[in-house]
Amino acid sequence: MSALAPGLSSVPASPHVHPQVRTEHDLLGDKDVPAAAYYGVHTLRAVENFPVTGTPISAYPDLVIALASVKQAAARANRDLGLLDDLKADAIVRACEEIRDGRFHDQFVVDVIQGGAGTSTNMNANEVVANRALELLGHDKGEYRHLHPLEDVNAGQSTNDVYPTAVSLALQLAAGRLLEAMEVLRQAFAAKAEEFADVLKMGRTQLQDAVPMTLGQEFATYAVMLAEDRTRLDEARALLREINLGGTAIGTGLNAHPRYAEAACAHLNRITGLPLTVAGDLVEATQDMGAFVQLSGVLKRIAVKLSKTCNDLRLLSCGPRAGLAEINLPPVQAGSSIMPGKVNPVIPEVVNQIAFEVIGNDVTVTFAAEAGQLQLNAFEPIIAHSLLKSLTHLRAGCLTLAERCVSGITANREHLAHLVGRSIGLATALNPHIGYEQATAVAQEALTTGASVHDLVLAKGLLTPEQLQRILHPDNLARPHARATVATDF
Amino acid sequence: MSALAPGLSSVPASPHVHPQVRTEHDLLGDKDVPAAAYYGVHTLRAVENFPVTGTPISAYPDLVIALASVKQAAARANRDLGLLDDLKADAIVRACEEIRDGRFHDQFVVDVIQGGAGTSTNMNANEVVANRALELLGHDKGEYRHLHPLEDVNAGQSTNDVYPTAVSLALQLAAGRLLEAMEVLRQAFAAKAEEFADVLKMGRTQLQDAVPMTLGQEFATYAVMLAEDRTRLDEARALLREINLGGTAIGTGLNAHPRYAEAACAHLNRITGLPLTVAGDLVEATQDMGAFVQLSGVLKRIAVKLSKTCNDLRLLSCGPRAGLAEINLPPVQAGSSIMPGKVNPVIPEVVNQIAFEVIGNDVTVTFAAEAGQLQLNAFEPIIAHSLLKSLTHLRAGCLTLAERCVSGITANREHLAHLVGRSIGLATALNPHIGYEQATAVAQEALTTGASVHDLVLAKGLLTPEQLQRILHPDNLARPHARATVATDF
Amino acid sequence: MSALAPGLSSVPASPHVHPQVRTEHDLLGDKDVPAAAYYGVHTLRAVENFPVTGTPISAYPDLVIALASVKQAAARANRDLGLLDDLKADAIVRACEEIRDGRFHDQFVVDVIQGGAGTSTNMNANEVVANRALELLGHDKGEYRHLHPLEDVNAGQSTNDVYPTAVSLALQLAAGRLLEAMEVLRQAFAAKAEEFADVLKMGRTQLQDAVPMTLGQEFATYAVMLAEDRTRLDEARALLREINLGGTAIGTGLNAHPRYAEAACAHLNRITGLPLTVAGDLVEATQDMGAFVQLSGVLKRIAVKLSKTCNDLRLLSCGPRAGLAEINLPPVQAGSSIMPGKVNPVIPEVVNQIAFEVIGNDVTVTFAAEAGQLQLNAFEPIIAHSLLKSLTHLRAGCLTLAERCVSGITANREHLAHLVGRSIGLATALNPHIGYEQATAVAQEALTTGASVHDLVLAKGLLTPEQLQRILHPDNLARPHARATVATDF
Amino acid sequence: MSALAPGLSSVPASPHVHPQVRTEHDLLGDKDVPAAAYYGVHTLRAVENFPVTGTPISAYPDLVIALASVKQAAARANRDLGLLDDLKADAIVRACEEIRDGRFHDQFVVDVIQGGAGTSTNMNANEVVANRALELLGHDKGEYRHLHPLEDVNAGQSTNDVYPTAVSLALQLAAGRLLEAMEVLRQAFAAKAEEFADVLKMGRTQLQDAVPMTLGQEFATYAVMLAEDRTRLDEARALLREINLGGTAIGTGLNAHPRYAEAACAHLNRITGLPLTVAGDLVEATQDMGAFVQLSGVLKRIAVKLSKTCNDLRLLSCGPRAGLAEINLPPVQAGSSIMPGKVNPVIPEVVNQIAFEVIGNDVTVTFAAEAGQLQLNAFEPIIAHSLLKSLTHLRAGCLTLAERCVSGITANREHLAHLVGRSIGLATALNPHIGYEQATAVAQEALTTGASVHDLVLAKGLLTPEQLQRILHPDNLARPHARATVATDF
Repeated sequence: MSALAPGLSSVPASPHVHPQVRTEHDLLGDKDVPAAAYYGVHTLRAVENFPVTGTPISAYPDLVIALASVKQAAARANRDLGLLDDLKADAIVRACEEIRDGRFHDQFVVDVIQGGAGTSTNMNANEVVANRALELLGHDKGEYRHLHPLEDVNAGQSTNDVYPTAVSLALQLAAGRLLEAMEVLRQAFAAKAEEFADVLKMGRTQLQDAVPMTLGQEFATYAVMLAEDRTRLDEARALLREINLGGTAIGTGLNAHPRYAEAACAHLNRITGLPLTVAGDLVEATQDMGAFVQLSGVLKRIAVKLSKTCNDLRLLSCGPRAGLAEINLPPVQAGSSIMPGKVNPVIPEVVNQIAFEVIGNDVTVTFAAEAGQLQLNAFEPIIAHSLLKSLTHLRAGCLTLAERCVSGITANREHLAHLVGRSIGLATALNPHIGYEQATAVAQEALTTGASVHDLVLAKGLLTPEQLQRILHPDNLARPHARATVATDF
Repeated sequence: MSALAPGLSSVPASPHVHPQVRTEHDLLGDKDVPAAAYYGVHTLRAVENFPVTGTPISAYPDLVIALASVKQAAARANRDLGLLDDLKADAIVRACEEIRDGRFHDQFVVDVIQGGAGTSTNMNANEVVANRALELLGHDKGEYRHLHPLEDVNAGQSTNDVYPTAVSLALQLAAGRLLEAMEVLRQAFAAKAEEFADVLKMGRTQLQDAVPMTLGQEFATYAVMLAEDRTRLDEARALLREINLGGTAIGTGLNAHPRYAEAACAHLNRITGLPLTVAGDLVEATQDMGAFVQLSGVLKRIAVKLSKTCNDLRLLSCGPRAGLAEINLPPVQAGSSIMPGKVNPVIPEVVNQIAFEVIGNDVTVTFAAEAGQLQLNAFEPIIAHSLLKSLTHLRAGCLTLAERCVSGITANREHLAHLVGRSIGLATALNPHIGYEQATAVAQEALTTGASVHDLVLAKGLLTPEQLQRILHPDNLARPHARATVATDF
Repeated sequence: MSALAPGLSSVPASPHVHPQVRTEHDLLGDKDVPAAAYYGVHTLRAVENFPVTGTPISAYPDLVIALASVKQAAARANRDLGLLDDLKADAIVRACEEIRDGRFHDQFVVDVIQGGAGTSTNMNANEVVANRALELLGHDKGEYRHLHPLEDVNAGQSTNDVYPTAVSLALQLAAGRLLEAMEVLRQAFAAKAEEFADVLKMGRTQLQDAVPMTLGQEFATYAVMLAEDRTRLDEARALLREINLGGTAIGTGLNAHPRYAEAACAHLNRITGLPLTVAGDLVEATQDMGAFVQLSGVLKRIAVKLSKTCNDLRLLSCGPRAGLAEINLPPVQAGSSIMPGKVNPVIPEVVNQIAFEVIGNDVTVTFAAEAGQLQLNAFEPIIAHSLLKSLTHLRAGCLTLAERCVSGITANREHLAHLVGRSIGLATALNPHIGYEQATAVAQEALTTGASVHDLVLAKGLLTPEQLQRILHPDNLARPHARATVATDF
Repeated sequence: MSALAPGLSSVPASPHVHPQVRTEHDLLGDKDVPAAAYYGVHTLRAVENFPVTGTPISAYPDLVIALASVKQAAARANRDLGLLDDLKADAIVRACEEIRDGRFHDQFVVDVIQGGAGTSTNMNANEVVANRALELLGHDKGEYRHLHPLEDVNAGQSTNDVYPTAVSLALQLAAGRLLEAMEVLRQAFAAKAEEFADVLKMGRTQLQDAVPMTLGQEFATYAVMLAEDRTRLDEARALLREINLGGTAIGTGLNAHPRYAEAACAHLNRITGLPLTVAGDLVEATQDMGAFVQLSGVLKRIAVKLSKTCNDLRLLSCGPRAGLAEINLPPVQAGSSIMPGKVNPVIPEVVNQIAFEVIGNDVTVTFAAEAGQLQLNAFEPIIAHSLLKSLTHLRAGCLTLAERCVSGITANREHLAHLVGRSIGLATALNPHIGYEQATAVAQEALTTGASVHDLVLAKGLLTPEQLQRILHPDNLARPHARATVATDF
C-alpha cells in the first residue's frame, strides 16, 4: 500500500465477499464509492457539491466521446515520449476506445452545471478511464497503485488544457450534425421554392401590400438564408480546431514534455479525423473564450433567422378564413381542446421557442465569458452546457421543421392570384408606362372605390388589354430583369 | 495663497485684463480652465479622459436638478449641524436653486459614459455650484479659498452617497413623467375600447381563427395592460425612495456628523417633495444596485407589452387589400419613395424600436450591476445612462403612439362582420346547443365547401333561424356571461 | 361504438389476450398507443412532433401537481354546476389526487419545449387523468365512451386557461421553495456577520483601498440583500395568484358556465391552499405574460446579487499567498489534477454559473413574451420551462452555497488587522482631527516611504498616542455613529 | 405649377421679400418648411413623428457620407443608362460630393430612432441633395419641378435598397476606424509585453495561486486577443460588402433598369474605394439582417474580451496596500472627493461600461433582426443606431485605454518577485524532480508553517541549491519549453 499516490488509495476487497462499496481517499479524507462504479472519490465529491440540474454530463455523448479521445491521445503521446509504459498506455487506449464506442457513458455522472472550470468533468473522465483500464489489466476497480487516474491517465495534463480541448471537440461534432440538419431544411425550402416558382403573390413590406413576387422567391429566400448561415457556422466551427492541449495549468506547459503538445495533437487528429492544430500562444489560448463566444454569436444568428422564417410561415398560414391564408401547413396534431377542427402551427412554434432559448443561451455564454479572470475562465462548464444545448436543440428544430412542416406545405394558388389581381400595388408596375402621376391617380381611385387597378386602366383607356397583360405578366412583375428585353420593348 | 485648500488653487486675475483662462490645480498638477467655465479642473480632466459618446450629462436635466437638490440639502444639513457657516450655506443654496430652475445646465459637461462610479459627475456638480456660489458672494470663479468645491460644497459627502442618491432622484422624476405618458396612452386605448365596444370580430389564437370577440375587448386589453404596468412602475419607483446619503465612502458614515444623514434626508424631502427615507443599512445601500435592477426589469416588462401591442396594431392593420385589414392607422407621413399611396405603420414601428432598445438597456444594466465589487459598484454611470434613456424614450414612445396613432384608429366594421359571418369558429358556440359532434361535422363541411356555418345549420334544420340568431348574437359570442340568463334559457 | 366522442375511440380489448397496444383516433387518423400508457393519442403525437430536449414535463413535479389540481378543481366546479355527474366527477377527483400524491408522473411525457401554447401538456393531463379515472371506475384505459379526456376531464376548459393557471400554480410552489432556500442562505450570512462583528478590515471601492469597516458589516450586507430580494420575490409571487381559469379559448368564457370561473377558483383555493383570485379582465389575462416577465425580472435581480456576492467571496479568498487572503472558504473537493494542495472556490463558481443561466433565461422569457400575438401567447411552454429551471437551480445554488461554503468560512484575522494597520486609508479618519491638509501630507508620505500612517502621526507629534488610539479604535472606524458621543468629545 | 410632380410642390417666393418659410406638399397636405432648410416636407413630418432621442442622424457622419455616396452612384448609373439627363445628374453628383466633404450634415435632422425602415432617412437625403442641387443649378430650394427629390434623386431606388446599402457602407467606415484603434491598443499591450518580458509573477487560476509566469506573458495575451478579434472584425466587415442596391422595393428590381444594379455598384465602388458586390439573391438580401447580426456578435465578442482585460487590469492594480498591487495604472484624475490621495482605475472602468453597453446593443440588434417580417425588416434604424454606437464607443474606449492607461502601466517588480518566492505553487515545478508525493508534503508544510518552499526543500536536503536554482529559474518556470534542452538535462 505504500506505493499509493498521495491522496488516493483503495481498500482491497476481502477474498470471499463482494463488498457493496470500496473506500477511496482524497484531501478531505476517506469516502465510500459504490463498488460497481467506474468513477471514484473525486467524482463523488462533485456529485454531492453540485446537485443543480439533475442532468449528468452523459447527456452530451459528444462531450464524453471527446474526453475519451483526449485521454487516448494523451496516453499515446506520453507513451511515444517514454513517459508511460506500453502496458498502461495500451490499457488506457482500450478503455478510451470502449467509451468512444458508447460504453460506460452512464458513469459520467457529474452535473452539467458544476463549479471548478471543468475539473470535476476531467476527474470523472480520469477515474472512469482508470478503472476500466484496471479491469482490462485484470485488476479490481480502485487499485490505483497499478494505474492511477491522475499520475497515469492525466499525465502531462491539466483540467485547464484537457477540458477546453474536449469541449472544442464536442462542439465540432455537434456542429457537424447541426450543419447536416440545416442542409436538410435548406433542401426542403429549396424544393418548395421550385414547386412554387410560378405562383404569383403580393410581396409585403412593413406588413403593407407592396409589389408582386412569386411564392417561389419567398421560399428561396429561406433556403438562401440557411445556406449563408451554414457558411458562417462552418467558419465558426473552424475556429474550434485550435486547441490548447499541452499548455497544462496556465498555458506555460509546466511539467509537460516539450514535445508533448505537438505529439498529443497529432494523435488527436488521427483519432478524431479532425484537422486540429496547437494554438500559437498557449497562455492566451488557455484563458480565451473567443471561439466559444463566436460560435454562440453564430448560433444566435441562426436562431434569429430561423425564428423570422417561422414567424413568416405562421403569418402566411394565418387563417383559415380571417387571415392571409396564403399557404397551408400540414396538420400534425389536433390544435385545440375546445375548438373543433382547429389546427395550429405547432412546428414553427416549437422552432420559435428553440430560437428564443438559443438567444438566451447566448447571453449566458456572454456573461460567463466576460467573467473569466486572469489565467483561466472558471465558468467553462456553463458555456459548454449552453452551447451543446443550443446545437442539439437547433438540430432537432431544423429536422422537425423540414420533415413535419415545410415538406408538406401547400399554396392556396387561387387566393394568391386573387390578392394580386385586386392589389393596388400593381400600380407601381405601371409607373414606367403611364407615368407616376397617372399611376397614383389610378391607385387612389382603386383604394377609394374598391375597383381593381386592372379594370380602371382599361376603363380609362390608358393601356390596351394586350399591353396591360404584358406588363402584368407574372414574369414581368416578379422577375423583371429576367425578361428585360421583353419588358423594355414596348 | 496659503489659505488655499490642498490640491486646489486659483490664479488671481490681474486687475485690468480679462484672462481667457484661469489655472486650477489637482493632484496631477496645474491645468488651465476656460475663464468663463463654472466647472473646474476635475471636470476638465474627466472630459479629456472620457471622450466616449459626445453626450454630456446635461442631456439629462433630471439628473442635473437632482444633483443640485442633493447639494442644497447637504448644505442645509451642514449648516444646521454647525459645520458650514450661514454665508457659505446660503450661497450654495442659492446656486443650487438657480440650477434647479434650469440655469447652468450647459456647465454639466462630463460624458454620460464615464469611469469612476460617478465621481466626475459629483465633481462637476461641486465645481459648478462652488463657482456660481462664489459669484453670488462677489468673488471670481476659481477663488476657492472663499468657498471650496470639496471642503464646502461636498462637505460630509462622498461620491458614493451623493451620486446614487442623485440618480435615484432623477429616476423618480423621469419615472413620474413616464407614468403620465402611460396614462395618456392608456386613456387613448380605453377611448377606443369604448368606441369599438359593439364591433364584433374574430379572435385569434396562435394566428388561427378562434372564436368571436369585440374589437372593444381587444383594445381594452391594451388599456388594462398599461394600467397594470403603471402599478408595477409605481412600485419600482417607490424602491428608489430609500437613499444612502450620509453613508459617505462605504456606508459607515465615516467623517459625516452622526445626525447628518437624517438631517440631509429631511431637507431633501422638503426640496423635492418626495417621501425619501434613509436606508436601514447604509453599507448595503451604498453598494446595492437592487432598486435600479428592479426598475430596469419593470421597464423591460413595459417594453415587452408595448412592443406586443404595436405588433398587434401592425398586424391588424396589415393591408390594405392583402392583409387582415381590420383597422386603419392614421397616415402620418408618406410611406414609400417608390410605391405611390403606400402608408406604413411608422408610429408603432418606432415604438417597437424603442422597446428593443429598452430591452437591450436592461441587459446592460444587468451586466453593470453584476460587475459591482465589494463596497461599491463602479459602473453606476452606465446604469444611470441606460435607465434615463429608457425612461425618456419610453415616454416619447407612449405619447407619440397615443397622439399620432391610437387616437386616430378606425375600424373596418363591414369587413370585420364579414369575417365573423364566414368564420368556422362560430361552430364552437354551437357546441352547447347541437352537440360537439354535429358542430364538428358542420365545421368540417364549411371548411371543405366554403359554405358558412350559419347557412349549413339552417339548411340542415339543426336550429331555427330565431335560435341561431340568438346564439350568434354578438353579446352572446363576445360576452356570454354578461347575458348569462338569456344565454341559458333556451 | 356509436356513443364514442367524435375523433376519439378505443379498440376494445379482445377477451383473452393482453394486447401490447390499444388504438386511438384523432383528426389525423388511428394510432397505436402502448396498452400500459395512461396518456393517449394526442400525447403521442406531441412526443413525435417535439423531440427537442429529451426532458419530459415530468421533470417539473410542481407543474404536474398543478395540472392535476386544476383538473380536480374544474371537475368539482362542473359537478357543482350540474355539468358533470357525480360518478365521473368523483373518479376524476380521485385520479387527480393520486397524481398530486406523486403517482403517474412518469406518464407526463411531452417534451418541456413544445409547440402549441401548452395544448400538448393539457392534452397529456386530460388523457392521464381520464385513463386513471376509467380504471378507478372499473373500465379499461382508452374506453373513453365512459369518461372522455376532452368532454369530461377538460369540460368547460381550454388549454388557454388551464395551462397558464397551472403554470402560475407551479411557479408559486417553486417560488415558495426558493424563498425557503434564500432564507437558509440569509441566515448563514447573518450568522457569519455576527461571528465577524469585531473583525476590522479595509473596505474597498473600485478595488482600491478605501476606509475601514468590519468583516461583519461585509457579511451583513449579503444577508440584507437576500432579505430584500426575498421581499421582491414574494411580491412577484403574489402577482401569480390572479388566474384566468374560466376564460376558455380567448378569455370571453365562451362555452363555460357563467358561474364556472368563480366556482373553479374557489375549489382551486381549497385544493392548493393558495389565495387565488379570478382576473378582472379575462381577455387580457389570457394573453398577458406580465406576471411571468415580472417574476423573471426578479429572478434575474436575485441572480445578479448572488453572483456579485459570489464574486466577492472568491475575491476575498483569493490566495493563499498572492491574493487578498482575507477569508478562507471550506475545501469541498480537490481543486487541481496537476497542482498539489490547490483548493478552488467551486461552490461560489457553480452559483455564478447558475446566475448566468438565470440571466440568459430572462432574455429567453423576454423574447417569448414579446412574441405573443393577439389573443394568446403561443410560447408559454418555453416561458414555463425557463422560469421553472431558474427557480429550481437558484434554490439548489442557495442551499449548496449556504451549507457547503458560507457556514464554513473562516477569517484570517491577523492578516486583516495587519492590512488595516498599514493602510493609508486610515488618513481619512484623521481629517476631522488634524485637518484635510495634514492628513493628505501624512497619506502621501506613507505611500512614498512605506511607513504606516499611525507611526507618522506619532512621529510628527500630531496627536498623542491616546488620541490616536481612540480615533483608530475599530468602533470609531467602522461604526462611527454608534459611538457618536465618544467620537466627538475630544 | 402644372408641371409639378404629384404630391410635391413649392410655393414660389414673392419677388421682393425673403419669406421665412416655403410651403411644400405631401399626401397629408401642405406644410411650411423653414426657407433656409435643405430638407423638405417629408423630413419635417418625420421630425414631428419621431421625437424620441433628440439625436439627429447627423450624429453619424459615416451614415450621412454613405447616403450621399449611394445617391451619387445612383445618379451616375441612371445617367449612364439614359434615365437622367446630364444637367440633373451633374448637379446631384456635385451636391453629393459636397455632403461627402462634410457640408450640410446639419440638415440631416431625422431622429436616430425612427419608424419606417429608414424611409425618413432616405427622404431626408433625397431632399437635401435635391435642394442643394437646385441651388447649384441656380434655382431656389423647393423648386422641385426642375429637379425632384423622388423622381430624380431617388430614381430607380427604394428606401429598401438605398438604406441597407448606406448603412452597410457606414458600418464599413466605422469598422475601419475601430480596427485602427484596436491596433493602437494591441501595440500598447505588445509594448508592455516586451517591457515586462522578464518580470516573473504568479499565475492564477480560479483566483487561486497557480504556477509562475511572466508579466510579459500576461500582457502578451491581451495583445493576442486583440489581434484575433481584429481578424474576426475584418471578416464581419467583409460580409457588409454585399449590397442590395438595385433590388428596389422587395428585391425583384421592379422599375429599375435591368443593368442598373451592376452599374450603380460599380460607381459606388469607385466613389468609396470599397470592393462592393451585388448580392446574388436580391429578394433575400433586401430582408436579411444576417450581416448586421454577425457584426453585432463580433462586436459583442470584442466587448467581452476588452471587459475581461479591464477586469484584469483593475484586479492586478488593486491596492495600493491591501490588494494584489502587482501593477500600477497611471493616475489620470483625482479618485475621491473624500479620501485624500485615492486614485481609481477610471479608464478601465469606462471601457467596462462601454463593453456593457455594446453587449446590451447586441440584444437590441437581435430583437430587431428577429422582428423582421416577410420581405423587409422595418427595424433597421435601431439596428444601424445600435451598431454605429457600438463601433464608435468601442473605438473611443480602445484609444483612451491605450493612451491614458496601458502605455503608462508600471510593474511592482519587487513585490511580484516576493510573491513568487513565497508561493506554494512553486511546488508544482518540483514534481518531476522530487516526485508528486514529496512535492505535496513540502507544499502542505509550507502552507501550515508559513515557510517558503525554497527553504523547506533545502532544509530537507531534497535538492542542492544549484539544482533548485536551475528549476526555479524564471525561464524554466514561465517558458519551460523554450529551455527544453536545459530543463531535461539534469
